[in-house]
Amino acid sequence: MPQKVRIALDAMGGDVGAPVVIPGAAISLARHRDTEFLLVGDRAKIEPELDKHPKLKAASKIIHTDVAVSMEDKPSQALRRGRKTSSMWLAIDAVKKGEADVAVSAGNTGALMAMSRFHLRTLKGIDRPAIAAVWPTTRGDSVVLDLGATIGGDAHHLVSLAVMGAAMASVLFNKPRPTVGLLNIGTEEIKGHEEIREAGEKLRAMNLPQLDYVGFVEGDGIGKGLADVIVTEGFSGNIALKAAEGTARQMAGLLRNEMQRSWLSKLGYLFARGAFQALRDKMDPNKSNGGVFLGLNGVVVKSHGGISAEGFAYAIDVGYEMVHYDLLNKINQMLNRDGGALSSVPTAQEAVS
Amino acid sequence: MPQKVRIALDAMGGDVGAPVVIPGAAISLARHRDTEFLLVGDRAKIEPELDKHPKLKAASKIIHTDVAVSMEDKPSQALRRGRKTSSMWLAIDAVKKGEADVAVSAGNTGALMAMSRFHLRTLKGIDRPAIAAVWPTTRGDSVVLDLGATIGGDAHHLVSLAVMGAAMASVLFNKPRPTVGLLNIGTEEIKGHEEIREAGEKLRAMNLPQLDYVGFVEGDGIGKGLADVIVTEGFSGNIALKAAEGTARQMAGLLRNEMQRSWLSKLGYLFARGAFQALRDKMDPNKSNGGVFLGLNGVVVKSHGGISAEGFAYAIDVGYEMVHYDLLNKINQMLNRDGGALSSVPTAQEAVS
Repeated sequence: MPQKVRIALDAMGGDVGAPVVIPGAAISLARHRDTEFLLVGDRAKIEPELDKHPKLKAASKIIHTDVAVSMEDKPSQALRRGRKTSSMWLAIDAVKKGEADVAVSAGNTGALMAMSRFHLRTLKGIDRPAIAAVWPTTRGDSVVLDLGATIGGDAHHLVSLAVMGAAMASVLFNKPRPTVGLLNIGTEEIKGHEEIREAGEKLRAMNLPQLDYVGFVEGDGIGKGLADVIVTEGFSGNIALKAAEGTARQMAGLLRNEMQRSWLSKLGYLFARGAFQALRDKMDPNKSNGGVFLGLNGVVVKSHGGISAEGFAYAIDVGYEMVHYDLLNKINQMLNRDGGALSSVPTAQEAVS
Repeated sequence: MPQKVRIALDAMGGDVGAPVVIPGAAISLARHRDTEFLLVGDRAKIEPELDKHPKLKAASKIIHTDVAVSMEDKPSQALRRGRKTSSMWLAIDAVKKGEADVAVSAGNTGALMAMSRFHLRTLKGIDRPAIAAVWPTTRGDSVVLDLGATIGGDAHHLVSLAVMGAAMASVLFNKPRPTVGLLNIGTEEIKGHEEIREAGEKLRAMNLPQLDYVGFVEGDGIGKGLADVIVTEGFSGNIALKAAEGTARQMAGLLRNEMQRSWLSKLGYLFARGAFQALRDKMDPNKSNGGVFLGLNGVVVKSHGGISAEGFAYAIDVGYEMVHYDLLNKINQMLNRDGGALSSVPTAQEAVS
């Protein structure tokens, strides 16, 4: 791909704003030299940070606005107050106008989803958007979706999640036909919601060339890497993600405490610190930062709000890869090819508005 | 309580059967001398095990049957084939007849729930049963329910789960007014399913003397111990539990691998093995073994199928404590006291039949 990847950053988003976003962009740029940035936000806050990173400065334009969506704004408030003026909106607007290929924000999830949906609209054949992210497993990585954009949904919705997740996995993992599993509470056919069973039957019957449906996967199957893509509606996806994140933090905390408890274990820690570092690297939440909004006419990536510059850089990387490997076209191709099977049946209830 | 606690054991349940169940009973008996056992199953398999544990033998009666429910039987098959004859049924039957105070089985969950429900029936004011278990948190332990008995459910169902979970927590943790949270995907009032919001409003309005409703808790709030009782419907509860269990196993595996990778880290492991042992103890899945079926006219405890005698003993302990501290009466008192608020509105869909 000879063209540059153009990334719009909401420089005011997240708990910290520009002091995290700008150095994060500098880190990501060092990994992907073919990036250009649109930095959207308060010029007075962006420029001092940008002056510390001359290479980034050379690859960036600033779009000034002094309006920012706060982390506390409800989606409806954000839309009312921040439409057409806020840094979040203007970053999405750059994607809408074709001035950027992807927007990345660490701002509040509900507001970002509401604005993205309002401005970019859903893809033909997609009723409701989804949030997808990479989940580290014992076999590598998997894509899990939906992590909280849309609560509930019928079999059609689950099938469209499978298609979009498979497109993302094929881009990220370079697999032409990633495996897809439906999250359920038992592998026996008799269990689970009716819509999950129906989605399973549909996926099996469709036998799509772009995805290999492998059946139901239970909650502990995600971490085992039983499928490249795990599909569920937004409520249980969010619960699964946060329960797993919580457990990882809980164990790390326990381990830290126990290692501090005696001089012998402290000594042991010193000897084994390479192993602990490797563990930390593998479970590093920064590295799985970057929730991709799927199902819209444009790519938007959500970073955690309380993240470091390192972590924000990973979210930018995710956006870069989605553009570089042409996610949106892949999704559209799959949707159009199978347009009949994915015809629109609006039933899902939305979480963010 | 001067009376003995009478426990009926499905001696054929689980992946192994009597060779795990009988030594498990011996371990639990050593902790609670005031226990009597009804051992239900094939006498030829039970007696050789029992001969190794004379104290247990003295405290046990055998109820012979050579019919056993297999781990593969669907609930409907188990009911058809095993009703009135299987070890699982006869253990539940002992509770029904008042010959035992609690039944414990490591047999298949769906069959055990179907038989328990069919034979014991739900309590007045309860539409659908639930499975509750103890979840280790950074602050101690919490009760989480429903872990997969009933999929979905309205606000009334969630409120009844809150009441039953609070009764269990008050028994287990000796707290007269345990805190209760509703699992949700955001702490903002605007998020989540309609029925969760409604349940929250009901619990707040009821202001029950037996529980302190603290609001919504997200998936990572369970492990933080944000409430003594976490309430959710069975699908998301099961997903949360298994996602957390999976993550714990994944981290333990990673840590083990990394510690084996160099002689320096192996040495570190030797020095710090006390700390690792403490970590293992705290995250020991055996210790949280024992899912309690709530909402029935009798107490039934489900052990994991693939568990050691140590692990099975913990499930027996859970049954013992439920009886010793009079769980069923506590639940009934709460239900009757607030009978108006918990009047029966059947809507939930069931998972196991």
